[in-house]
Amino acid sequence: MTETLSFADDTLILIDQTRLPAILETFECRTVEQVFDAILRLVVRGAPAIGIAAAYGVCLARDSSDKPSRDAYLKAIDRLAQSRPTAVNLFWALDRMRNVIASTDDDQRLPDSLLCEAKTIHDEDREMCRAIGRNGASLLEKSQCVLTHCNAGGLATSVWGTALAPIYHLYESGHTLKVFADETRPLLQGARLTAWELSQAGIPVTVLTDSMSGSLLRTGNVDAVIVGADRIAANGDVANKIGTYPLAILARYHNVPFYVAAPSSTFDPNLASGDLIPIEQRSRSEVAEPYGVTLVPPSADVMNPAFDVTPAELVSAIVTERGVVEQPNHEKLAKHFA
Amino acid sequence: MTETLSFADDTLILIDQTRLPAILETFECRTVEQVFDAILRLVVRGAPAIGIAAAYGVCLARDSSDKPSRDAYLKAIDRLAQSRPTAVNLFWALDRMRNVIASTDDDQRLPDSLLCEAKTIHDEDREMCRAIGRNGASLLEKSQCVLTHCNAGGLATSVWGTALAPIYHLYESGHTLKVFADETRPLLQGARLTAWELSQAGIPVTVLTDSMSGSLLRTGNVDAVIVGADRIAANGDVANKIGTYPLAILARYHNVPFYVAAPSSTFDPNLASGDLIPIEQRSRSEVAEPYGVTLVPPSADVMNPAFDVTPAELVSAIVTERGVVEQPNHEKLAKHFA
Repeated sequence: MTETLSFADDTLILIDQTRLPAILETFECRTVEQVFDAILRLVVRGAPAIGIAAAYGVCLARDSSDKPSRDAYLKAIDRLAQSRPTAVNLFWALDRMRNVIASTDDDQRLPDSLLCEAKTIHDEDREMCRAIGRNGASLLEKSQCVLTHCNAGGLATSVWGTALAPIYHLYESGHTLKVFADETRPLLQGARLTAWELSQAGIPVTVLTDSMSGSLLRTGNVDAVIVGADRIAANGDVANKIGTYPLAILARYHNVPFYVAAPSSTFDPNLASGDLIPIEQRSRSEVAEPYGVTLVPPSADVMNPAFDVTPAELVSAIVTERGVVEQPNHEKLAKHFA
Repeated sequence: MTETLSFADDTLILIDQTRLPAILETFECRTVEQVFDAILRLVVRGAPAIGIAAAYGVCLARDSSDKPSRDAYLKAIDRLAQSRPTAVNLFWALDRMRNVIASTDDDQRLPDSLLCEAKTIHDEDREMCRAIGRNGASLLEKSQCVLTHCNAGGLATSVWGTALAPIYHLYESGHTLKVFADETRPLLQGARLTAWELSQAGIPVTVLTDSMSGSLLRTGNVDAVIVGADRIAANGDVANKIGTYPLAILARYHNVPFYVAAPSSTFDPNLASGDLIPIEQRSRSEVAEPYGVTLVPPSADVMNPAFDVTPAELVSAIVTERGVVEQPNHEKLAKHFA
């Protein structure tokens, strides 16, 4: 299977997630600007994958004479930090790259040191996914059927993902869960990506529109809801794909546990609460003219926030590579991430 | 403005609602089968409009020698009753046509009697919309901003609609509400139809994906949610477009009133509760391949219930042409519709 992202010969190779599920093809980046464009257009998306892609992106920086340089690397970091505002993993990865620059005196060694750091971030992500899989499996091992939103699977990370990692872990242990996937308008990452990667792996998946999760939960057939996260504030409030917050309310209303799976790099101890998380507003056309079809008359306005914030009190547990935090709050999270 | 439906020269003329908002064109039906097809394909949709269309459809019945006949009329009624299962207005309108046949002994008079009944149903619908507008206005007159789902506007009836009727009524009295319209996947009646008809009328409308209503309600900027209905059970449970039930839960969670507007013909006293309302399951392709674009890989399953049921306890009030029933229950509705 093609990896979500890989790096070789000064080229970042991404599965072009805008083309799935109809077409599986790669998008190759040889410049910082191509990486910026790939993140902006969601060729690569998912908080952890954005972080890895940005780290490799820094390694592609060249100055005006097409040579790597300290200044070009720093400019690349600033540029890539402009690509998307909500997922904190992006800034976390770029901070690691910036720290490498600061701690490397020898300019000659910079290219190797930076590539090494990007590969470390990538390798750590693989380990992180496996650990989240193990830790989350303890919450889902008695479940038969789970509901997820957007794509927090292998395509959002290097492998396995965050929300889907426990499902892959259980599948490898011989316990196959049935997965319901919200299609996740406007960009349909649930229908296009989650359904694709789960069915590629042999895990049964049923797609529903976002509006159907209420009546699905009412049937009593869903044992748990599990989603990823783009940023978790110090108090446990969770920014994730638009539609996560209503899903958390619906889960609570139907007494179904609501789990969030994310690596430590998604935690932002600098933000006291979710109200402070910047929410990316995306273009009208994603809602109004998908695939070139006019769904909304030009005379009507459109709103398109890419994320919403779920208050910690609606979250049953947060699963990280370090373990499980039940009923998360400021104190428990500070201890967990200490 | 083109009327949602009209009848002249043995032809039922419908706005083709599958083509809006890109193209405004009519679809002409000269046979029962064309009306059946128009209802099935949602060329005409909305519980009240389906009832009117079906009533006119009966008038188009011909026997094998292309003549109207009692037998052809009865067969037309049976056929049209197969088109869609959930909206009770369809069966209500067909029952009225069947009663005309039963009470008309003279076969020669049947065509005129049936056409007269269909026109009466159509005329009553116009009056009903105006009355719902007046009655609902009392609930919304202090509101600045409302949220609606699907299309329960003029395009779902003969004029003005049900949920949108109070908004049109207030607009005519000089009070312009701002309307948020859920796009309403899978068939996007909110984005395509509600946004089109409100902006045609000069009422400001903003379209959001169904997944955005949670964070919109959290802002505190929405004063009320108002929707239509396809069937209301004796206890006040409401079947309406898929996505209505989660919206009612979200409204309750955010302490926003949740109103249902519908004519008496939507009330089904024969069903004790919403659990007994048949829910139409529609095709995979509506979710998975809209406009010919493959959104869901063939390896994944798809669910597509067209409606959900909102329990009466989540409904703040039901508005009908007769008045307003606050916190509806079996007793209040029996009295209201007596």
